[in-house]
Amino acid sequence: MADPNPGGEKAALCLEDLRVGQRFVSGTHRIDEEQIRAFAQQFDPQPFHLDAEGAKGTFFGGLVASGWHTAAITMRLLVGGGLPIAGGIVGAGGEIAWPSPVRPGAVLHVESEILELRPSRSRPDRGMVTVRSETRDQFGVVVQVLVAKLVVPRRMQP
Amino acid sequence: MADPNPGGEKAALCLEDLRVGQRFVSGTHRIDEEQIRAFAQQFDPQPFHLDAEGAKGTFFGGLVASGWHTAAITMRLLVGGGLPIAGGIVGAGGEIAWPSPVRPGAVLHVESEILELRPSRSRPDRGMVTVRSETRDQFGVVVQVLVAKLVVPRRMQP
Repeated sequence: MADPNPGGEKAALCLEDLRVGQRFVSGTHRIDEEQIRAFAQQFDPQPFHLDAEGAKGTFFGGLVASGWHTAAITMRLLVGGGLPIAGGIVGAGGEIAWPSPVRPGAVLHVESEILELRPSRSRPDRGMVTVRSETRDQFGVVVQVLVAKLVVPRRMQP
Repeated sequence: MADPNPGGEKAALCLEDLRVGQRFVSGTHRIDEEQIRAFAQQFDPQPFHLDAEGAKGTFFGGLVASGWHTAAITMRLLVGGGLPIAGGIVGAGGEIAWPSPVRPGAVLHVESEILELRPSRSRPDRGMVTVRSETRDQFGVVVQVLVAKLVVPRRMQP
């Protein structure tokens, strides 16, 4: 695939710069037990996210990250160059699934693909872009699938 | 509506205890600028989540919470008694939308309704429950809609 950003890997892309099928790959993030527990204590204090010992008797059979923690790390990877949209990544919503649990030591990255581009009918300065982002671990296992609708600016007309 | 939990508001509910149309209301959480910035610095470092002054010229016209922060707070409210499911809240995925931004000072709560109950065909000890959770601010404005599929245990058979 041709480099979509020959001028620099973090060049910001407008609607006109995107095409269906275009793909982006993020950097990586390693998650550990301390991160999992810290997020869980603040936002998702359930035994299977808090304590390796206490998690053994639960649904997951061991400590796993909150799905919302995986979602937050995914966003961090997208914002950090994994999806270089002009004006930032502004999501209106989407579908999310967690097909496999994230355990301590997983090294995550995000692979994104543009599924749909739709200029706004009412707002000539923007459009909606549907992006599928798969979060995978170092073995390629998909731990999250997010299909998000993003608001993306169009280039200013002269 | 009859109290679904006459024995105590945090009694944990199995699949057999739930019915379509059953509703639950969480406690509240007040979000402030410090929380918004702290979450954003870690997971969503974009100008409209980081700095009130810098956010003025952006899409949102001021500081707003990351949608993933709203999702995480929603989870905290559900886990803290807003959705008392036996064995905890284990989500397989769902649909999420953020119809309105969350600004500093918003006081959030979550109103949930059971949409569908489906015993597992392959696993007699569990079922799938679809729950719609609306996160609202103190004025009733819906800031997030989450329609989630949860894994819920069935009662042990004698």
